[in-house]
Amino acid sequence: MSYRAPIADMLFTLEHAGGLAAAREEGLDADLDQEMVAAIIGEAGDFATEMIAPLNRVGDREGCRLSDGRVTTPAGWPDVYRRWAAAGWNGISAEEQYGGQGLPTALWALTSELWAQGSMAFGLCPLLTHGAIECLERHASPEIRERYLPRLVSGEWTATMNLTEPQAGSDLALLRTRAERAGDGSYRISGQKIFITYGEHDMAENILHLVLARLPDAPEGTRGISLFLVPKRHVATDGSLGDHNDLVCAGIEEKLGIHGSPTCTMAFGERGGAVGYLVGEENRGLACMFTMMNNARLAVGLQGVAVAERATQAAVAYAHERRQGRADGVAPSAIVAHPDVRRMLLTMKALTAAARGICYRAAVEIDRSRFAADEAARRAAHERASLLIPVAKAFGTEIGCTVASLGVQVHGGMGYVEETGAAQHLRDARIAPIYEGTNGIQAIDLVTRKLPQSEGGTARDLIGEFAALASRLNEARSPALGGTGARLAEAIEALSRATTWLAAPGRDPAEALAGATPFLRLFGLAAGGAALAAEALAGAGHNDPDAPRRAAVARFFAENVAVEADGLARAVMEGGASLAGDGADAALAF
Amino acid sequence: MSYRAPIADMLFTLEHAGGLAAAREEGLDADLDQEMVAAIIGEAGDFATEMIAPLNRVGDREGCRLSDGRVTTPAGWPDVYRRWAAAGWNGISAEEQYGGQGLPTALWALTSELWAQGSMAFGLCPLLTHGAIECLERHASPEIRERYLPRLVSGEWTATMNLTEPQAGSDLALLRTRAERAGDGSYRISGQKIFITYGEHDMAENILHLVLARLPDAPEGTRGISLFLVPKRHVATDGSLGDHNDLVCAGIEEKLGIHGSPTCTMAFGERGGAVGYLVGEENRGLACMFTMMNNARLAVGLQGVAVAERATQAAVAYAHERRQGRADGVAPSAIVAHPDVRRMLLTMKALTAAARGICYRAAVEIDRSRFAADEAARRAAHERASLLIPVAKAFGTEIGCTVASLGVQVHGGMGYVEETGAAQHLRDARIAPIYEGTNGIQAIDLVTRKLPQSEGGTARDLIGEFAALASRLNEARSPALGGTGARLAEAIEALSRATTWLAAPGRDPAEALAGATPFLRLFGLAAGGAALAAEALAGAGHNDPDAPRRAAVARFFAENVAVEADGLARAVMEGGASLAGDGADAALAF
Repeated sequence: MSYRAPIADMLFTLEHAGGLAAAREEGLDADLDQEMVAAIIGEAGDFATEMIAPLNRVGDREGCRLSDGRVTTPAGWPDVYRRWAAAGWNGISAEEQYGGQGLPTALWALTSELWAQGSMAFGLCPLLTHGAIECLERHASPEIRERYLPRLVSGEWTATMNLTEPQAGSDLALLRTRAERAGDGSYRISGQKIFITYGEHDMAENILHLVLARLPDAPEGTRGISLFLVPKRHVATDGSLGDHNDLVCAGIEEKLGIHGSPTCTMAFGERGGAVGYLVGEENRGLACMFTMMNNARLAVGLQGVAVAERATQAAVAYAHERRQGRADGVAPSAIVAHPDVRRMLLTMKALTAAARGICYRAAVEIDRSRFAADEAARRAAHERASLLIPVAKAFGTEIGCTVASLGVQVHGGMGYVEETGAAQHLRDARIAPIYEGTNGIQAIDLVTRKLPQSEGGTARDLIGEFAALASRLNEARSPALGGTGARLAEAIEALSRATTWLAAPGRDPAEALAGATPFLRLFGLAAGGAALAAEALAGAGHNDPDAPRRAAVARFFAENVAVEADGLARAVMEGGASLAGDGADAALAF
Repeated sequence: MSYRAPIADMLFTLEHAGGLAAAREEGLDADLDQEMVAAIIGEAGDFATEMIAPLNRVGDREGCRLSDGRVTTPAGWPDVYRRWAAAGWNGISAEEQYGGQGLPTALWALTSELWAQGSMAFGLCPLLTHGAIECLERHASPEIRERYLPRLVSGEWTATMNLTEPQAGSDLALLRTRAERAGDGSYRISGQKIFITYGEHDMAENILHLVLARLPDAPEGTRGISLFLVPKRHVATDGSLGDHNDLVCAGIEEKLGIHGSPTCTMAFGERGGAVGYLVGEENRGLACMFTMMNNARLAVGLQGVAVAERATQAAVAYAHERRQGRADGVAPSAIVAHPDVRRMLLTMKALTAAARGICYRAAVEIDRSRFAADEAARRAAHERASLLIPVAKAFGTEIGCTVASLGVQVHGGMGYVEETGAAQHLRDARIAPIYEGTNGIQAIDLVTRKLPQSEGGTARDLIGEFAALASRLNEARSPALGGTGARLAEAIEALSRATTWLAAPGRDPAEALAGATPFLRLFGLAAGGAALAAEALAGAGHNDPDAPRRAAVARFFAENVAVEADGLARAVMEGGASLAGDGADAALAF
């Protein structure tokens, strides 16, 4: 329980694996000045360590309670939330005209990771508010923006995303919530939404629900979905809070983890219709949602990284304290001395660092896509970000679970009792591969929409960049790096092979879909290995006292994790046929 | 929640992957007659399905309560336990002279799996009793055997294993519980034991604790540990129950899962010393424990398989019911039609079947080691069983967690809410890689003690047998098998390479230990692939209507899972160096 935000490592990763150093050389944005970044992230790290981290256990133990439609969050949560908002963290990347600080996405990403390191369940609330701010900034009318954004940006109010319905999860075409035109420009919303994170709580005085619903004359499917702003309490033109809108929290879920975060069933319009305001155009609601998607998915990938960080710190601490066995044949040793424990801990370290590198790179590409001087550079960066996002989300959340599970294992029997906290990390982490687009959806997105960008050129260029890093590692010929360059080059070659195979003219879409999940992991291994390579090279080049450590992590990853790559490429290219056919049908019969 | 014991599949696996058919041809044991096996296992399956499975949810929800040293198990548990014992299931493999049925280990293994399919937490109690019966049969004095075994065999009483102490988990050399000679042939035991499964409960009228403790004049380390039988209530020579012994349940753990199984802190001798009776010789207690180890580890491996089976059945059912997306481009499809979901489900099916095949093979080898006609055959079988046991335990429990986690994923958001039951499987499964020797300990056992058996000959012969199966698959040239034979042959070749490397003269033990965990998984992939190959070949040879299904599962495994093998072999042979050195030390510093 000795968590400390790993600020120096996060900053180093942002500079080198994330590529902020290179972006700064391109003159990307004066706001990315290294000292200022360090100051902001350092302060956020202090807040996460001192204020949020102590909430994590109590949040898990107490959970949330629902009574008469009101949700009570765990002890201490509202107070820390208000301090957090008062310190200005909520609006870090929001537009300055609404009270935000207009800072780059990369900074928001690192702070998001820090809140989740402190407590994933706590950090979820601002994550959703952030998405709503982004959505309203881009799509809402000036009137809505002026009325709602300032207090959303300040964190006085929070926001939610209301997408899922019992019959409509990954498939939003099936949603049924209704919206009727009221005649005064507003709408009346009715229907039931489930799995609404922070749909009701006691940390803020108002909650703005962004709700997907269908107009009576809407086309079927996803082209007939509109987006509405539905406030919990009405807001007068002078900004004062009025009555409660016609919506209520009808239930909260009992979940495996993130107990501090209330997951609500929301009932809209049980008394005639909740008043809602159109955001964007009628029937274009999904397009509005899509604009939030990259940042939201990035932040969820970072939740995986954050829980992995926390679990790793706890496991390393325990492995230094717990004494069992005699690694040197004499006195009982701290278990960190045993090869098998070292393998588990290094796996945790390496996966966490690799996934973080991928996420930060995606964040920096998002900033390039916003701030680069010329249009072509912005477009290319947007495609790189779009390519990396499904990998960041799925690989980050997958390793979050793997690392948390290894954390339990390092603790042995103590890991299985809730007292230690190791099990909570596993329970918390397990949602991240599911929400914000399941990891299966991410893999499909990667293979069917992202690889084909620029006729495959975006992926080819990025893989070429990874290969150049592997070559530089090989040329470094450092004994400390062992076979890092060679193993990484093989992994990248495997990725390249599988990418070419997927992109082959006439490739049956069913074949591509069958290989999507192993392909995504393969991409993660190559991109993650490249991220660690960039850090190892940067460390070595700067006489960094941490260089041996960075080299060791990159090497461990390449020699022990990235070696899966060839098998994954084969599963992509040769394994898909086994998913279909009579035999497979019979095996999956019910 | 539509679980049904998969009796036909279990019997097929026992015959072909387990090798019972071959053993029967060797004339191994008349008790292994196919019809009788089917009758017994079928009846056990009915009991698991109808009586035990309904306990699983309530066990998780209610858990156990401790009050005044007494533990109350969940509603319905004592009643079902008593019916189960009354039906004679407890003594299935115990000696007939104590009321057992003297049936082979393989039958006991399958019934153990069935109880765990019904409820892992419930099945744990008989698992521990079984170990104690085995131990007392072999090591206790005739007087102890006669006084205690009949009611232990009948299930009227249950038993525990008291090994772990706060400072002594994997490392029993560190244990401190004291035993003093009382002068009358009995001993007085005092000390604290933790993590004692079913250390106290209300399902039976007496509990026999097998306790490891040190005599005052015992040598240090593991050669100074003795084993004692310490009954909860004293038993008079006429078999009547007397007073409570000086032992008490001082606490129960709040755990991630298996809530129905009370995990107790046991305090012995707080009022002067608990009366205990020596089992085996003084200072030879660990040797007595070791005799139980193979069966106990096999049963824990089968817990992993059992939870995987249950999770798979639930996921398949859900995937047929849940409709999202349009696999055919038209109507909402059951999600089982989506390639990514099929990949998850087939992974679940294939891992479960592969691990089951390994476990059953180990069980049949144990029977060969007991019943084969000639001494050399018994010894060879004992070595094969010993070689397979760490793989069965670690691979079975590892895939238990993997499959349960995939089960959550298939359920999407519903998997994360406790209502569905998918999350419980993950929580329950997570203990199995930890207890009964962590999976890291299994890997060390495999590499340092089992591979060297018969100068490596046992492993070489078994790998040769796997290779022969792969050749037969290749020769079958069945289009339905695709690349099964080729991929399996590669995996076996990778195992062979890594085995040779580990066995090389002068191999540094630290190198072997560093590669132990990936080596164990590699062994599991080859052995599991071979098990599925045996089933595919047997199915094809018998005009079995299930042959296409068995071929599909074998093929999926070979083409999508076993392809990891080469990377694992490289991690074994080339990845160990990265665990040591200044850089790794710095990465793991605290």
